This record gives sequence, structure tokens and C-alpha cells, in this order.
Amino acid sequence: MAVQRLGQYTVQLSRPPRITAAFTLMGPREGAGPLGSYFDGIVDDYMWGETSAEKAERKYLEQAARRALQAAGLTEHDVDCFIAGDLLNQIVSSTFSARSLGIPYLGVFAACATSALALGLAAMLVDGGFARRVLVATASHYQAVERQYRYPIELNIQRGATNQYTATGGAAAVVAPPEEGAGPRITRITFGRVVDWGVTNANDMGSAMAPAACDTLMRHFQDTNTTPGDYDLILTGDLAKVGSKVFRALVDRAGVTLGGKHMDGGASMYTPEQWSGAGASGSVCSMAVILGYVYKEMARGRFRRVLVLPTGCLHSPTTWQQGDSCPGISHALVLEND
Amino acid sequence: MAVQRLGQYTVQLSRPPRITAAFTLMGPREGAGPLGSYFDGIVDDYMWGETSAEKAERKYLEQAARRALQAAGLTEHDVDCFIAGDLLNQIVSSTFSARSLGIPYLGVFAACATSALALGLAAMLVDGGFARRVLVATASHYQAVERQYRYPIELNIQRGATNQYTATGGAAAVVAPPEEGAGPRITRITFGRVVDWGVTNANDMGSAMAPAACDTLMRHFQDTNTTPGDYDLILTGDLAKVGSKVFRALVDRAGVTLGGKHMDGGASMYTPEQWSGAGASGSVCSMAVILGYVYKEMARGRFRRVLVLPTGCLHSPTTWQQGDSCPGISHALVLEND
Repeated sequence: MAVQRLGQYTVQLSRPPRITAAFTLMGPREGAGPLGSYFDGIVDDYMWGETSAEKAERKYLEQAARRALQAAGLTEHDVDCFIAGDLLNQIVSSTFSARSLGIPYLGVFAACATSALALGLAAMLVDGGFARRVLVATASHYQAVERQYRYPIELNIQRGATNQYTATGGAAAVVAPPEEGAGPRITRITFGRVVDWGVTNANDMGSAMAPAACDTLMRHFQDTNTTPGDYDLILTGDLAKVGSKVFRALVDRAGVTLGGKHMDGGASMYTPEQWSGAGASGSVCSMAVILGYVYKEMARGRFRRVLVLPTGCLHSPTTWQQGDSCPGISHALVLEND
Repeated sequence: MAVQRLGQYTVQLSRPPRITAAFTLMGPREGAGPLGSYFDGIVDDYMWGETSAEKAERKYLEQAARRALQAAGLTEHDVDCFIAGDLLNQIVSSTFSARSLGIPYLGVFAACATSALALGLAAMLVDGGFARRVLVATASHYQAVERQYRYPIELNIQRGATNQYTATGGAAAVVAPPEEGAGPRITRITFGRVVDWGVTNANDMGSAMAPAACDTLMRHFQDTNTTPGDYDLILTGDLAKVGSKVFRALVDRAGVTLGGKHMDGGASMYTPEQWSGAGASGSVCSMAVILGYVYKEMARGRFRRVLVLPTGCLHSPTTWQQGDSCPGISHALVLEND
């Protein structure tokens, strides 16, 4: 069957590729959270022996990528592209990992929605025959991201209730043709538009991103003629607690009942005792929830069909300081077991 | 014919899409340079009525995108994806333009090689049937990029002979199936690896990127079994004068004779009287030379087959300050007339 365009925005792949291997390598705080047991590795040191938080982030990304390759029984020579992105300026964690891996490198940026952009593009490149296999990765690091976007953590700035806490870790996956494994298939992709409802508080990214998640969800439902009932889980993220509330209200107002199907990655990463404001963010967050929690629960047969809607807040400290509001984006993927 | 993988790294498209429309919108300095007559629009004000250089960069990008659509006789609803990237942190010029255009947005980053990454991906998405048409754009702005990567121009820091001058402007193109127009077709794509020979001088990006250009060129020649004789022009960029010299020496050492076929975008943007150090850089530079000079000379029949090798220096001020060297990348595209 050929690639099909469904409606205006959604693509149905012809021979949907699989996520044939995944590796999530998270920091101590993430390991101690509710999803800790789903992660493949927990590093007990934020700095991981490096001299800066930025170099530690890079190590998380590169090591996750290497271990995903290992898990697939592949080497760098067996994959044709490395698609990666992160939050650091000029996505340097991805770039320096690409340097060490030596695989042709496609850098992408969708902030905390990088997971879906990278996985979606990887699935298209494999499905179209442009790459035999693609390695996908992202990472984020609490200390590196905080000091770039907000304040160095040494200042100990008080966190608001809408603030999100950047997750630390790296997560990577191999996307390959369906005959190469048994992981979930990426069957449908809806790339998102940039949606901006004028939230100027960069400490409330959840509210800024919620309209984008709702926009992509509605377009996906319309294009595919599906409803929440067609999915075992609808995973957003990282809207965290505040953004999830806004998201559910928007979806409700659009006349769609999510029922018990909605879960948010950012709201699920930490316990209330972990003092994390509204929850987690960071480009590793949705990737780790997809490749840790969803991937494993799909392997166990608990979920058969999952709609993932990672969300990203696309502002920069400069745009925010110059008075711009915070634009959001959300890319959707459907993951399906055979 | 199906998509063919040639050798390890190169892809030959099945029904090579065309660049059906292009628009280059450049600053005053670029308009006064040797390629000025090839650009579609020259703005005589760097700030273009905006209150910051960053907002001016955004305007250059968005206006170029809108005018490329116009040139193709299309509206935002006729293209399925907007693939864009730029040099500003979190590629905000692309993001905010995507917000205004309302087209599903894929953000990419390859620094000054963004042109080839975006055009190459666009060609794959169209060829694979994942998008009917794709709009591609990039921009850079001298004042915005200088103050982010180096110093605010108000400091009037003395430039070295290896320094490059960031070009100001926006450039955009529509990539569509071959039956939709008469522009050059994107027939082959070689995505590059990150190559780093240890140049730690961030004011000598040409030398840092030259090994990447040579690496991608050699892989492309090997995969496609071609030589410089098979192309009417081999366009690198922006290696500028210093990087071009290093590039030619490396290619020569690899046993390949470029003959008179090599041209560099960065070395061609300004006259020696324009005081620009080694030449131009900036993500708009290679895009503008491809979509201005190459596109028009191909339309006139002067070139039939052109190999473009945009180059990007993927460091960030942070990595450089933390002692890392400057990694380079180069993605190759073959543009062919029927």
C-alpha cells in the first residue's frame, strides 16, 4: 500500500516502520520518580564525571544512543541517519554526540516535542526507502537547561506553582523496517502547527503549550476519523499539571470526551514529594515516557494503540525578554502493536 | 523507479521533485555585492522598521517565505510542511515565521548548512508522498548573529583575516512534484557526518568546516561514481576565502582535481572593497547563492547539473568557551535541469 495522506495534515505510512530498540538513561531524581522502574538505566550522578552540566547532558545523549544501538544489535554503520535535537543553544548535545557517532546527522528542534519530530521524520525516511534504519535521540539536563533558559540553580530562585522542572537524562531509539523486530509500529503522523495564544509568562509553559496539543489532537481526530475511544492511551507532554488542566478544558470545550485515556508525561515524572512545581519538562521527558513507559507497556500487551502528542514551548530567553509571547507546538504519532 | 540508495550515504530520489519557486530577499550590503543582481529583492534598511535585529531577521525570513509562495502561485494551504532553521538560539526566526504562516512546522538546525538540510528533507518528503509540497526557508542577520555568537556590533571589535561576516537576508523555496513547474530537480542527496579536525578558533569557521565539505564531497563522488567533470559547478559555502583554500588543498590531497568547477558562496557575496574579512557566512548565505545565483543560471541554461555542498559550523558560544573545538558539517544536493 502506498503512503496515504489523510485529510489535510496526517500521513499514514505505507509499511509502518517499528521502534525496534530503545534505551532510556535517566538522572537520579527521575529514577526515584513513579516511572523509575520503566527506565533502562539510572545514573546516580547528575554530572556523570563531567566538568560542566552541558557536557553531562551530551554524555547522557550519546550514551543513550550507543546503548539503543547495542540493544538493537547494531553498530553505527548499520544506521544511515542520526536524527537528534535538544534544548541547548545550537543543539550542541546532539551535534557533539553525532560527531562521536560518525553517522550522517540531521539536527532538529522542536523543544520538548523533539521526540515526536525526530521519531516521525525517522519513520518517514525509513518508510520512503531513504534510510535503511535511523537512530533517534534527545536529552536534557536540569542544571544546563535551567541556567540557559532561566537562572543558574546556584541562585536557588523560588519556583512558582506553574514552573516545570527540567528532567535529566537521555533517550534514544532505533527506527527500522517492520520485518526487523517486534516493537510498536509508527503508523500515522500529524506534524503540528505553531500555536500561540499569547501566554507571556515563560514560567507557565504548560498553559502556553496546551492550545497546540489541542490543535494537533483535533486535526488528528478529524483527519483520521477517530475518537479517544480508538486509542488505549493518549499521552501528551510535557504539559505537566497546569497545562494538562488547560488541555483537558480545551478538548472538552471542543466537544471531545477524553474519558480516562489521557496521561501527561510531565505530570507523571515526579511524585508530589519531589517538589517539582507543576511537573517535569525538558526534551528528554516525553521521549523517556514514550520509550520507557509506553514502549514497555505495549510490549507487555497492556496498550495496543497509543496516540502520543509531545509538546514543545518554542520561545527563547531573547524573544521572551523582547516581549514576545511563548509559541507552542505539538506533533502527533500513533504507535500500534501488530 | 523506486528510491535508490547509492553506496553507503547517498540517496537517488525516485521522481525527483523540483524547486518550483524561490525568493531571495537580502540586505543592503548583500545587494551591493557581486551577486546583488541575482537577488529578487533588496531591503535598504537592516532593521526593516523593527525594534530589534532579531525581529528584523524574523521579518526577512517570513517575507521571503511569503513571496516564494506567491511566486509559486500558492497560498499557505497548498503546502503541507514548512521546513526552516536559522542561527538564533532555539531557531526563533523560523518558529515565529511558522506561527504567522500557520503551516505544520519542522524546525531544523545545521547552522549555515541549513539550506541543504531543509531542501534535502523537503525533497524526500515530497518524493515519498508524505507532503504534496513543502515550503523551505532560512534567514540570518548580521547584527543579531554577531551579538549572539561574538560581540554586539556597537563594540566595533576588530575583525581578523579569518573572520566571516554574517550575511543579512531571508531566502525561501517551494519544493513540489516534477509536473508542477520547470525549476531544477533535486535528484541526489548525501547527508553529511559531523567532522571535527580540532579547530578551536571560532573566528576561523572556514578552516573548521572545510574538512566536512571535503568528507561529504568524497563520499558523494564514491557513492555516485562521479567526478568534478560530471558537474557544471560545485558550490560550497560558506567556506569563504580561507576555508576554500583549505578545502581545495584537502580535495587535491585526496587525489581529486576540481578544475575550474569550484565556487564558494561565502567567498562570492562581497567585493574586497566591502571589508568583510574572509567573506560571508550566515544561514542565508548558501541558501541565497543557491536560490539566487544557481537557480537563475540554471533557468538560463548556463548550468545543467550543479552539486551544492553548504557547510555549517555547529559550535555554540558555550561549547567554545568550555574549550571544545568547532565541529563542521556539510550536506550535499545535486540540482539538475531536465
